[in-house]
Amino acid sequence: MKKLLNTLSKIRPQDSAARARARQRLESLAMPKWALGRLMDLAVDLAGMTGREDMKFSRRTVVVMAGDHGVADEGVSGYPSEVTLQMINTFLRGKAGVNALAEQAGARVFVVDMGVKKVPKGFDPDGKILDKRIGPGTSNIRKGPAMTRREAQASVEAGIEVAHRLSGKTDMFATGDMGIGNTTASSAIVSVLCDAPVSVVTGKGTGIDEESFDNKIRVIEDAIRINAPDGRDALDVLSKVGGFEIGGIAGLILGAASLGRPVMVDGFISTAGALIAQALCPVSTDYMIAAHRSVEQGHSVALERLGLEPLLDLGMRLGEGSGAALAFNILDGAVNVYKRVATFEEAGVSGVTEK
Amino acid sequence: MKKLLNTLSKIRPQDSAARARARQRLESLAMPKWALGRLMDLAVDLAGMTGREDMKFSRRTVVVMAGDHGVADEGVSGYPSEVTLQMINTFLRGKAGVNALAEQAGARVFVVDMGVKKVPKGFDPDGKILDKRIGPGTSNIRKGPAMTRREAQASVEAGIEVAHRLSGKTDMFATGDMGIGNTTASSAIVSVLCDAPVSVVTGKGTGIDEESFDNKIRVIEDAIRINAPDGRDALDVLSKVGGFEIGGIAGLILGAASLGRPVMVDGFISTAGALIAQALCPVSTDYMIAAHRSVEQGHSVALERLGLEPLLDLGMRLGEGSGAALAFNILDGAVNVYKRVATFEEAGVSGVTEK
Repeated sequence: MKKLLNTLSKIRPQDSAARARARQRLESLAMPKWALGRLMDLAVDLAGMTGREDMKFSRRTVVVMAGDHGVADEGVSGYPSEVTLQMINTFLRGKAGVNALAEQAGARVFVVDMGVKKVPKGFDPDGKILDKRIGPGTSNIRKGPAMTRREAQASVEAGIEVAHRLSGKTDMFATGDMGIGNTTASSAIVSVLCDAPVSVVTGKGTGIDEESFDNKIRVIEDAIRINAPDGRDALDVLSKVGGFEIGGIAGLILGAASLGRPVMVDGFISTAGALIAQALCPVSTDYMIAAHRSVEQGHSVALERLGLEPLLDLGMRLGEGSGAALAFNILDGAVNVYKRVATFEEAGVSGVTEK
Repeated sequence: MKKLLNTLSKIRPQDSAARARARQRLESLAMPKWALGRLMDLAVDLAGMTGREDMKFSRRTVVVMAGDHGVADEGVSGYPSEVTLQMINTFLRGKAGVNALAEQAGARVFVVDMGVKKVPKGFDPDGKILDKRIGPGTSNIRKGPAMTRREAQASVEAGIEVAHRLSGKTDMFATGDMGIGNTTASSAIVSVLCDAPVSVVTGKGTGIDEESFDNKIRVIEDAIRINAPDGRDALDVLSKVGGFEIGGIAGLILGAASLGRPVMVDGFISTAGALIAQALCPVSTDYMIAAHRSVEQGHSVALERLGLEPLLDLGMRLGEGSGAALAFNILDGAVNVYKRVATFEEAGVSGVTEK
């Protein structure tokens, strides 16, 4: 518990003086007041998060937290658990959606095994995957808790360790996920932490038919009834209905926040992790940037609870960190506006004539 | 009229075979079906526009069409007409909002003088501005037509010429605008072409107070009453209540469409130009991509008439082509997904198990 508590104690609200300085510069730029809207809001946030106005975010890492879910046995996904490992292989080969979008945005993709079901010997000969395995996938939450409380804590602490390990080469983090069955766990978490009905926060994940969708809702309702997670206790919720990779995402966010680094939060699974982080440390949301609004039902509920307005809304629902990678471009736009645009004075442009 | 008619006759609907091939490839990618939503829609559109699937759009040009407006005399803007030229100077120095965002997106900015009030001798010693001047700004539309019908046609044809001139070094165009008073002209155009009340399609432009805003609405209502533009005749609307740079934008779009090149359409002023293009040639919308939803009231009305859903919605209202430049990043994401992501087969990933 020491690592977790120590991290939580280091998370400070955004630097209000840096925010004010950034705002002042932006208001002096040669354009109508705040004419670039959310790009300017974002620049202010970035200054507040880092306490600096040099706006250096060129080293960016999308951390794909991977883990399997016992609840996949309940037919909640269109894909078998084996796909988790197959997709990890695709990440390592640079051929998945997140790779394409990370490459375009100048980000690297880093895969963490938080608890994939089975990793065959020799699967990762070059040691590209960071091993933070808590176990061989979670237990089936329809039948009992996903993991022990100790494991839940360990998964969050593992995420914190990942943030520290990568911090030397990372100005900015993005969260990503891979785990067949993880929209089921995420819906359960969102339902409990946002006090919302399961039917409101459950979507079709990778794409399932109506029958499977009805089953998915029943499975989540059963999981919550059987495990009775305590919504006031984030580690209880994570242990009862969560996932190893979701704990890892929560930890990554907390670790980044404690280091004063912004975190681009991807889609639905990532916001489930972000809700855990928020529950453990409300001020950690000061370091979160919501990348996009997923079509996955429930994402909007989670975003509202986090108090975050996403940058993009493009009908995406892939996960992997793909939306976060794409949103780095918007951040680059904000940074370039901050750095490159002349002030009214520098540009010699007449100011507003009205009062 | 020959150039215009000749161009209109060359604009063809998107290539449906290329669309189908692109769709087929995207559906085979190792991810749940259409999981990247609008990025995938965009890739299909790009294939349809160009008739090709090589997706080469690295050479991109933001064309900033600049012109002044006699109606600025009516106190419709917070800035004096001189600012048009001052901002052109800022564009040339690479220090405006559009420069920062174009640089970030790997695009060049190209300025066209469609009719700035006064360009002092020696203002552009390096000849960076393309001179397509129709006149020294439009006439005050509250007192009479903005320009003659011949000038309206000439402004559109000038835009077509710009498209052709740049086409050798441009895979993709973006529209941009500069002209104090041009939200007033744009609201008038949108009101007439979309048959919407002036009060519904008029916003605060660069930022004016309530009193000036009420005045702006009255000015536009007067302009429409006095000039009685015929909504069935795009050149009549452009000549009565438009602007030289708005005609230039319409022409640029038509020229690009006739060349099979996509056009990223910026904010409110640009959509006023796009509406003129659509009225002259409805199928030209096949080549338009709406970059973003401006906060300028009336933009959404125009987008709906164009049948376009914008890529971004970030509370921006700068114009200049800034939103279009930023949206190039989304296009790059779509292109990279199309080109780099492995198919299920290549990735060796198990397919969907459900029916």
